[in-house]
Amino acid sequence: MLNIIELRRDLHQHPELGFTEYRTASIVVQTLKSLGYDVIYGQDAIDGDSRRGLPSDKVLEESYQRALEHGADPDIVGNMRGGYTAVVGTLTGKRSGPTLAFRFDMDALPIVESKDQDHFPQQHTFVSHFPGNMHACAHDGHTTIGLGVAEALSQQEFAGTIKLIFQPAEEGVRGAYAMVEKGILDDVDYLFCAHLGCEVPTGQLHGGTTGYLATTKLAAHFQGVASHAGATPEKGRNALLGAATALLNIHSIPRYSTGDTRINVGVLEGGTAANIIPEHARMVIETRSESEEVNSELEQRVRTIIEHSAGMHGLEYDVEVVGGAIPITCDEDMIQIAREEAVGIEGVHTIPEESAYSTGSEDASYMLRRVQENGGKATYMIIGGSNPAPHHHPKFDIEEAALPIGIEWFRRIAMRILR
Amino acid sequence: MLNIIELRRDLHQHPELGFTEYRTASIVVQTLKSLGYDVIYGQDAIDGDSRRGLPSDKVLEESYQRALEHGADPDIVGNMRGGYTAVVGTLTGKRSGPTLAFRFDMDALPIVESKDQDHFPQQHTFVSHFPGNMHACAHDGHTTIGLGVAEALSQQEFAGTIKLIFQPAEEGVRGAYAMVEKGILDDVDYLFCAHLGCEVPTGQLHGGTTGYLATTKLAAHFQGVASHAGATPEKGRNALLGAATALLNIHSIPRYSTGDTRINVGVLEGGTAANIIPEHARMVIETRSESEEVNSELEQRVRTIIEHSAGMHGLEYDVEVVGGAIPITCDEDMIQIAREEAVGIEGVHTIPEESAYSTGSEDASYMLRRVQENGGKATYMIIGGSNPAPHHHPKFDIEEAALPIGIEWFRRIAMRILR
Amino acid sequence: MLNIIELRRDLHQHPELGFTEYRTASIVVQTLKSLGYDVIYGQDAIDGDSRRGLPSDKVLEESYQRALEHGADPDIVGNMRGGYTAVVGTLTGKRSGPTLAFRFDMDALPIVESKDQDHFPQQHTFVSHFPGNMHACAHDGHTTIGLGVAEALSQQEFAGTIKLIFQPAEEGVRGAYAMVEKGILDDVDYLFCAHLGCEVPTGQLHGGTTGYLATTKLAAHFQGVASHAGATPEKGRNALLGAATALLNIHSIPRYSTGDTRINVGVLEGGTAANIIPEHARMVIETRSESEEVNSELEQRVRTIIEHSAGMHGLEYDVEVVGGAIPITCDEDMIQIAREEAVGIEGVHTIPEESAYSTGSEDASYMLRRVQENGGKATYMIIGGSNPAPHHHPKFDIEEAALPIGIEWFRRIAMRILR
Amino acid sequence: MLNIIELRRDLHQHPELGFTEYRTASIVVQTLKSLGYDVIYGQDAIDGDSRRGLPSDKVLEESYQRALEHGADPDIVGNMRGGYTAVVGTLTGKRSGPTLAFRFDMDALPIVESKDQDHFPQQHTFVSHFPGNMHACAHDGHTTIGLGVAEALSQQEFAGTIKLIFQPAEEGVRGAYAMVEKGILDDVDYLFCAHLGCEVPTGQLHGGTTGYLATTKLAAHFQGVASHAGATPEKGRNALLGAATALLNIHSIPRYSTGDTRINVGVLEGGTAANIIPEHARMVIETRSESEEVNSELEQRVRTIIEHSAGMHGLEYDVEVVGGAIPITCDEDMIQIAREEAVGIEGVHTIPEESAYSTGSEDASYMLRRVQENGGKATYMIIGGSNPAPHHHPKFDIEEAALPIGIEWFRRIAMRILR
Repeated sequence: MLNIIELRRDLHQHPELGFTEYRTASIVVQTLKSLGYDVIYGQDAIDGDSRRGLPSDKVLEESYQRALEHGADPDIVGNMRGGYTAVVGTLTGKRSGPTLAFRFDMDALPIVESKDQDHFPQQHTFVSHFPGNMHACAHDGHTTIGLGVAEALSQQEFAGTIKLIFQPAEEGVRGAYAMVEKGILDDVDYLFCAHLGCEVPTGQLHGGTTGYLATTKLAAHFQGVASHAGATPEKGRNALLGAATALLNIHSIPRYSTGDTRINVGVLEGGTAANIIPEHARMVIETRSESEEVNSELEQRVRTIIEHSAGMHGLEYDVEVVGGAIPITCDEDMIQIAREEAVGIEGVHTIPEESAYSTGSEDASYMLRRVQENGGKATYMIIGGSNPAPHHHPKFDIEEAALPIGIEWFRRIAMRILR
Repeated sequence: MLNIIELRRDLHQHPELGFTEYRTASIVVQTLKSLGYDVIYGQDAIDGDSRRGLPSDKVLEESYQRALEHGADPDIVGNMRGGYTAVVGTLTGKRSGPTLAFRFDMDALPIVESKDQDHFPQQHTFVSHFPGNMHACAHDGHTTIGLGVAEALSQQEFAGTIKLIFQPAEEGVRGAYAMVEKGILDDVDYLFCAHLGCEVPTGQLHGGTTGYLATTKLAAHFQGVASHAGATPEKGRNALLGAATALLNIHSIPRYSTGDTRINVGVLEGGTAANIIPEHARMVIETRSESEEVNSELEQRVRTIIEHSAGMHGLEYDVEVVGGAIPITCDEDMIQIAREEAVGIEGVHTIPEESAYSTGSEDASYMLRRVQENGGKATYMIIGGSNPAPHHHPKFDIEEAALPIGIEWFRRIAMRILR
Repeated sequence: MLNIIELRRDLHQHPELGFTEYRTASIVVQTLKSLGYDVIYGQDAIDGDSRRGLPSDKVLEESYQRALEHGADPDIVGNMRGGYTAVVGTLTGKRSGPTLAFRFDMDALPIVESKDQDHFPQQHTFVSHFPGNMHACAHDGHTTIGLGVAEALSQQEFAGTIKLIFQPAEEGVRGAYAMVEKGILDDVDYLFCAHLGCEVPTGQLHGGTTGYLATTKLAAHFQGVASHAGATPEKGRNALLGAATALLNIHSIPRYSTGDTRINVGVLEGGTAANIIPEHARMVIETRSESEEVNSELEQRVRTIIEHSAGMHGLEYDVEVVGGAIPITCDEDMIQIAREEAVGIEGVHTIPEESAYSTGSEDASYMLRRVQENGGKATYMIIGGSNPAPHHHPKFDIEEAALPIGIEWFRRIAMRILR
Repeated sequence: MLNIIELRRDLHQHPELGFTEYRTASIVVQTLKSLGYDVIYGQDAIDGDSRRGLPSDKVLEESYQRALEHGADPDIVGNMRGGYTAVVGTLTGKRSGPTLAFRFDMDALPIVESKDQDHFPQQHTFVSHFPGNMHACAHDGHTTIGLGVAEALSQQEFAGTIKLIFQPAEEGVRGAYAMVEKGILDDVDYLFCAHLGCEVPTGQLHGGTTGYLATTKLAAHFQGVASHAGATPEKGRNALLGAATALLNIHSIPRYSTGDTRINVGVLEGGTAANIIPEHARMVIETRSESEEVNSELEQRVRTIIEHSAGMHGLEYDVEVVGGAIPITCDEDMIQIAREEAVGIEGVHTIPEESAYSTGSEDASYMLRRVQENGGKATYMIIGGSNPAPHHHPKFDIEEAALPIGIEWFRRIAMRILR
């Protein structure tokens, strides 16, 4: 039987960034197989071309080697090499029935974990072993719950099919879309997703959420022509002039009377030396809106500005989507089922009527959308975890007491849907 | 016989801006006809579509009416209405020979003339009668010399043809190109042009000049969509954002290692009220270079920047050439002839070997170029006039003693070329 | 007795822009005096230095002369010369009681009125006699109602004091602040204001409004140094470079997570000619927010950007407030009184419970605020007028049937408050 | 006796960037000492605070360790640790006389050396052993010549003092200024510097140069405040908005009518992630001019723009000089001496009368200036080396036959000056 706490702490010590979750995914595959699940992973579980914001080959390979050094099964991760770190486990009931999917995300963040003594993982000696990476958004807990649920359901009788989806690269909203494009959600009738923490105390559970924004993350490249800035400045094509012009104009995109919007140029880098006309520049941009249509319009405005900022200075350019999410609409009856099944779980004391509210973005939104487009139902739940510091903070943590609550909640929901 | 001083003072009192020289041109036509010249003018003497920086219909019409009120001959100026204020007078010698042209420009400047007592025209009560306009660049003198030469040559015998070209709109370098495009210079074998003043003392004559820069003057219009800035900012297309982006990027066009360049956005105007997204903006730009090729490249860069500044914000735009000039290269043998014929003119004391130097621009350059392209020869001379204040200054003036010197110089050159 | 329709049509024919309402105010003074009111006006009724967006001396004087030509009483308007076009009439009841104020604005807009036959004022031959100006926001109606109320109340017995405030320059939110600064509102216990039209049908009355935004209108001037763009560009200080930089950066002020904001640079003008480094530029900017604090922060950001855009290019600058307003909060009990007194007025058929909603701005807000700060109560009401075209449109109009309704409503409110 | 070719090839294999020339300087110190020179180095030879563009501590330390691994003498380089890689060797003649200095620079470039077979160092197996670094500007040859001259002069009798200056960090014009500030040049009466290559064939020697531009290299840092771009954009202070504004305005600094200028923003980097308001940005800028005064004015303009671009967005900033040079004026009599002493050197076939011309920049300029300010004389010579590819190119090289020519030239000059 799985030791939930030990598993969570092992994952916490080995935080892997998006599309490099080789070791994590290896453990997921091993565990699911040992529990009798049919397991697909690697290129069978994710559409390669649809992955957004894929790391460089160098980073992918170094992470792969690191995973091997830290105990990943070579036979398994060999099939994931190149950033194919998605896993899907399926268990079929004895009786026929609908297909129910749960989704868990596995990736960590590029954050240096705190080593202060008031940080629980430091006190209990399970802080990150991978310098510069940290599970600061509870995805170690998500993966643990996912495997805990897998174990719990492997011992149950039910009618229909259970599909456990372990997704890479939620940070930067990059991985869900590629699993959807692979068709993983196409046969799903019911989908439940959840997040741990979210400033909600342990023992409080929300059956749904509202507020997640549509967002697009873009990377733009400007390619000009270098030239000696003293000898022949007129022969250069200045990529930084194009990029700086784009930056100012992107920030000048108008406010919308129809609702809140956001725009940010988060990164700009270009040029090589004081005396060289800069030939290359790179920008990372994000747009957000409550409305998917307005977000598309913002993205289009950004693309138009980049196109013409480049054209103005004779530059080549390209724009690449490196992340994205859409708004989430939870089905009322699924929220209701989730709330009902929360009642009576040991340690649960609060089940608010209202949904949780977030102004973040979440790429599970693509999965909910696909299920709903096919006539299915879905919701996105919150599992309180009394996080002592905000998400993405060097001292982020969740109370481990939240883990068995989460496992039991998912288990009950499965038994309700597939009874 | 013409009273040169009186004529000059009459012209000085009635300064007319480019393409509105109705009264001036009317006097020129009358005088040339009375001296026996064949005269063409109006649409016969200038190509309408090639005129640059034409004033508005309203300005053209008001100036036309003013000219009539101030004695212009209705039969003559009726044929110039709409800004066709060019005149060409031709006199054919008894014997056959080459065609020799002289060019004189007629327009004034939008400058308020000084009424200080140390200003010669004020002392002698012949300051401008047209408020806001002034002959502050000696074109009143040029026209006077042109008519003086016309008279002098009408009494001479010579071999060939004399062509006296009276050009509108030299200020802003706008009118010469359209006379060239009409073909006025196509049969010319020799062309002599001259400027009075130029910080050269009366009695000093230069046979040629160097340094005149290639230049282009552009007007750009940006047309967007107005919208209420509070209620629906996202529905606007902001013309001022496009124009401000263009302005900054035009000023960022690189320096050239091949020689001096200049760029200026001299005017920017747009928008109507604080609470309206600006739907229109207008810019006036100039480029300059010693090199015609580089000036063309600068113009092309400006056009590219405007195109993309507009495109970036979804604006319509257009760019119009409102002025232009090219460099001047004087033929060495013409310089030599001019210098030789200067010797012995009463009042002339200095005939330097070197050409005069100017960093301005002059659209007679198109006329010299056309003659030279056809195998002819040309030069651009300077007639010293001891101007007490710089050109375009409210106290600009030239010594009237320079006028008979100029007339005699042109007369001698004609007799030399057409002997 | 006043002929209300005739009065409104006379005012409509003589539309005067903000701070030039000499003729209008002259009529107001005459009428109030003839009805027995104590009247103050001119510098007694408005603080000169606090007036925002005052027209030029030339405009003020020309309007003054025009008013005289159109029948303004010289003795009265002589005291208003220079833009002091505010009037306050006071009537004291026989018994003591609170002070109740009503406010009416008098100014017109720089809009060319339609002469189409479907435009009611054209059909009835009372379109604007002052070319380019138009009463396109119903202030002719407001002034008419104000004088109608003055007449009605002059025949009533009441306890306390009635103060009728006739304000100049509401358009551009410029005049109310200066009457407040003069202390006109300092003794007021109750204040009722109203607007005609607002897309509300005749016969519908709203007791209050919500939504009016805080706003600031700024004019910025940049003063540099002119220089010849060809000869000595390095000696110039380019005002347009500063202004264009300010424009782009003002539009880049971030969105606020705390609520909606707006920013617009509505006008930018600078420079004189293609070949002169621009020495002067002018910008008009507005900020808006639901929150007065955020609007102040936006104004401060704009000022900081202008300061440094100027400093960057060695320019002098100044920033002037040319308009402003704050949010409006209506007192619930005043809304209730207004709604109750609307019941039974002839022609009134709808008295909604909810307040009207507007996203505009209104400088009566300063008056409401001052009264409320002093412990008084206030509201801002809407009088439906079935306007056939939007406010500020060349075909804007209101049904004249709304005028007696408005007069009666104010009269009843007065009798209720001062009973 | 030194094997010149072997020495040069050893240095070529161990190219060290500016202020990290530990191994090179160690060899210089050892050789000079073995030849009987008085040697000062480390903090005795350079003013620490005046060093410009010093690498990070990390880079300094890694380079230091690398030098030790590649044979640097620990006793010597221990005194250079932290980037004090300057060396001065002094030899005093038997008789008294003036002080004559020669200067040689030692640093390499961050360029990947070519491994093509047509590249001479590849053919002869002495390409760079330090990946990413390369002697692509002949400073390996300069150092070799310096040590060759040291040897040659150690065997001569002369009157006065010989001072051999081995300078770090000429690339980026960073090191000379700090040796001048240390006072190394204060007692020098005559200074000769030289460069190998410069597109001049082996066997051709120039006694002087003209054209070196004044230049300043600046690094600017903008420090703002990070904030979540979705949740609280208004709490950020956006460093990239400041930097982009600075970039556009720096490029908009006007052309100068007084002569050629250059401006470039060569590098801009800032921000961390799509969803974070960028809190930091860094820019590298250079200015150039024939005139030191104009260059100072350009630098001042850049500083003003940076100050106000930062102030506009509430950013902290600093600007640091990371490199600089001034124009070079060679003394005519020194040029003459150099030309005379070139006559008859084996392999020398061409000694042009005119000086060489360069549009680059060279920080030996500070050394020449200091000597000349003290009443001394100086020149900057060119030693042809038939470089097959331009300076700073991956295939740059010089013919080794130029090395003995250079050594002999310096030797003869020393004997002439100190005879």
